[in-house]
Amino acid sequence: MNKPQSWEARADAYSLYGFTDLPSVASRGAVVLTHGEGPYVVDVNGRRYLDANSGLWNMVAGFDHKGLAEAAKAQYDRFPGYHAFFGRLSDQTVMLSEKLVEVSPFERGKVFYTNSGSEANDTMVKMLWFLHASEGKPERRKILTRWNAYHGVTVISASMTGKPYNEVFGLPLPGFIHLTCPHYWRYGTEGETEEQFTARLARELEDTILREGPDTIAGFFAEPVQGAGGVIPPSQGYFQAVLPILRKYGIPMIADEVITGFGRTGNTWGCLTYDFMPDAIISSKNLTAGLFPMGAVILGPDLTDRLQAAIDRIEEFPHGFTASGHPVGCAIALKAIDVVMNEGLAENVKRLAPRLEAGLRAIMDRSDHIGELRGVGFMWALEAVRDKATKTPFDSSLSVSERIANACTDLGLICRPLGQSIVLCPPFILTEAQMDEIFDKLERALKKVFAEVA
Amino acid sequence: MNKPQSWEARADAYSLYGFTDLPSVASRGAVVLTHGEGPYVVDVNGRRYLDANSGLWNMVAGFDHKGLAEAAKAQYDRFPGYHAFFGRLSDQTVMLSEKLVEVSPFERGKVFYTNSGSEANDTMVKMLWFLHASEGKPERRKILTRWNAYHGVTVISASMTGKPYNEVFGLPLPGFIHLTCPHYWRYGTEGETEEQFTARLARELEDTILREGPDTIAGFFAEPVQGAGGVIPPSQGYFQAVLPILRKYGIPMIADEVITGFGRTGNTWGCLTYDFMPDAIISSKNLTAGLFPMGAVILGPDLTDRLQAAIDRIEEFPHGFTASGHPVGCAIALKAIDVVMNEGLAENVKRLAPRLEAGLRAIMDRSDHIGELRGVGFMWALEAVRDKATKTPFDSSLSVSERIANACTDLGLICRPLGQSIVLCPPFILTEAQMDEIFDKLERALKKVFAEVA
Repeated sequence: MNKPQSWEARADAYSLYGFTDLPSVASRGAVVLTHGEGPYVVDVNGRRYLDANSGLWNMVAGFDHKGLAEAAKAQYDRFPGYHAFFGRLSDQTVMLSEKLVEVSPFERGKVFYTNSGSEANDTMVKMLWFLHASEGKPERRKILTRWNAYHGVTVISASMTGKPYNEVFGLPLPGFIHLTCPHYWRYGTEGETEEQFTARLARELEDTILREGPDTIAGFFAEPVQGAGGVIPPSQGYFQAVLPILRKYGIPMIADEVITGFGRTGNTWGCLTYDFMPDAIISSKNLTAGLFPMGAVILGPDLTDRLQAAIDRIEEFPHGFTASGHPVGCAIALKAIDVVMNEGLAENVKRLAPRLEAGLRAIMDRSDHIGELRGVGFMWALEAVRDKATKTPFDSSLSVSERIANACTDLGLICRPLGQSIVLCPPFILTEAQMDEIFDKLERALKKVFAEVA
Repeated sequence: MNKPQSWEARADAYSLYGFTDLPSVASRGAVVLTHGEGPYVVDVNGRRYLDANSGLWNMVAGFDHKGLAEAAKAQYDRFPGYHAFFGRLSDQTVMLSEKLVEVSPFERGKVFYTNSGSEANDTMVKMLWFLHASEGKPERRKILTRWNAYHGVTVISASMTGKPYNEVFGLPLPGFIHLTCPHYWRYGTEGETEEQFTARLARELEDTILREGPDTIAGFFAEPVQGAGGVIPPSQGYFQAVLPILRKYGIPMIADEVITGFGRTGNTWGCLTYDFMPDAIISSKNLTAGLFPMGAVILGPDLTDRLQAAIDRIEEFPHGFTASGHPVGCAIALKAIDVVMNEGLAENVKRLAPRLEAGLRAIMDRSDHIGELRGVGFMWALEAVRDKATKTPFDSSLSVSERIANACTDLGLICRPLGQSIVLCPPFILTEAQMDEIFDKLERALKKVFAEVA
């Protein structure tokens, strides 16, 4: 065939686009990006976009952070790659594991590296299956998660994910059980208080455990705030209600902090923001501020001891990825943790989160078609509705959130359509002026689209 | 607890080691590496090792390649991270997809990125399940692979892997069927010629398809040369025998070229070395010369058209990893492909492979306990046996291959124990003098260990 010439045509010719609304690309063309400036990205046509999505939640230090680039470059000059098999590993890997345990909520623990959050969740499932079998309970294999959870896209992490779009793959696999999403505004019933809603979800958890049999459950995974399911903070008291039930039946509780870890909710971990102690943490994304693919399983004391004992019994844990603990990724992560925690980024989130919330709330209050504002820290969603009082959504064929996102893009603002909501999760370096730019462009886009569809 | 002080103690304290012989680490300590020089790596104590394992097959340009580091560094300065969702992607990603299709054996095709070979195989399984369901055959879900295959460590790619060590996880999952490994020396029966052996394996494939039902099979995955299963080239005529059977029953054939791709067998692809045309290629490792975690699914024309049509029907392919098509990974891959194909590395493999084979054959011929030398290009295995004539292995409790690898390490040579064999897959930059260093140290280690155990 003739070689396509434009960037957009070249992208189309060779890419199988993932998580992409194809009608949008067909009518508007792909956006091919060349570089970034702070929280902005720039395309091949010189157009500039304020990326209020931080890439995919992860580019928290923006798109041209000098210190992070220097850390990466220095390590490429020093030792540009190695693995962590056979008891050989890089000094950077040793230092990062030490640092991750130090900044974790755990008193002590151990770390296992992967290349993504998907792989980290998939790895955690393998660890739990292995652990339970080693402890004489091989039938403990079922995994509990919640509807609207997002845990990744490997077959297993997609099975954990509670979104209907995975049906096209014939997923979830059997043995992955999804509980009610703790979204009170949407799933609370007529006359039910938030406290009653939380209590109902706790009862559902215990009923499910008893129905399935406690000795068939391998673990319970939860994001402190559901992220790619639509930014859904837990209902009041949710984790305080479910944790005692999990403990009662000996079910490990895994916090998927891929999005919430390292500052997004205003604290280092989402489990600190919501005041609970998990048995293990899944980390990725912010871990390297998006500069390198990396995931990590951080095990707390109990799982560390039990898993190490199980491994010692067979003398080798037959698991690991080629790039697990890659020295460049570890060097970047060491720097990223320092930048986020000690160079003002986490502080900026804490300081500006109320301003972000207030600005979005004002936009909601001025609109007839934003039914809910929800979020925490630097992660927020505005839910579009046809009718505010009845919470009735727009007809899905109208693709309201995609239209809003496209209208934003036309104005030079990137935000993310998720179901019927628009998600905003800006980089932690955001200034007040840039925040005002988000408010202004978002409101113009909302007005334009609601005028078309309402 | 008190903080451990030495590098080795710090590694132990915070690492859950994967694919590591724990008794070796307990008695010898972890090896913590700081930097590299050509094919050598150096540890915190200043000890230098010739890494005849290329890291994990992947650091084919060695551990301090200037041009590759420059490509990485330039991209970190230009655009240090982005994703490929929502029809937005970096220019580097567009260029790499174009390049990958150009250097693939396919006339045309499309590319999907992951962060590892594990994720690429896992993704390919999802693609096949999705494709068959979309074409009205949702029951086409079983995956055919072979014993001793290695396809990765996610639950799905571990289920595809044909190694008994996955039993500790309760794997493989149902529906993953392992056929006989095409290793004539080990699995050929008394009096059977290699031609007869190949014909038997082809019959087994067809019998299996008919027994299971052709309309229950999603795909057949095979490494051109089985890598982490022990460097096992196919028996004579193997792919020519199995491909017509797969075609007859409409079963896609996927070549897992994670190890064999980009030069390892002496050609760009293993399927060129063994003269067959797959329907898709799984790439990773050499793709970035080990400098960045990246995997790619490269679809040939038929799967491209069918999968794109299936995606178009639902308007969005709900799959993708945060770091899919990361601009730095793509920039490195573009440079790595150029370095391997155009800067003498592939040529060096072609030129020196006969010398490598001859040197290893001489070592085998001088030893009473090397039963087989097998391999191609720059990937070889020497199989240790108690008795050469009867091919009787050593008792596994002797850990012969681990002892040989440890004896090599003591001499400053890294090679890999795999079952009862020792694997050598040196970087493509290897010189003749460095090859002689491998021969010398390996033979001394073999003599030492065989003297102890024989």
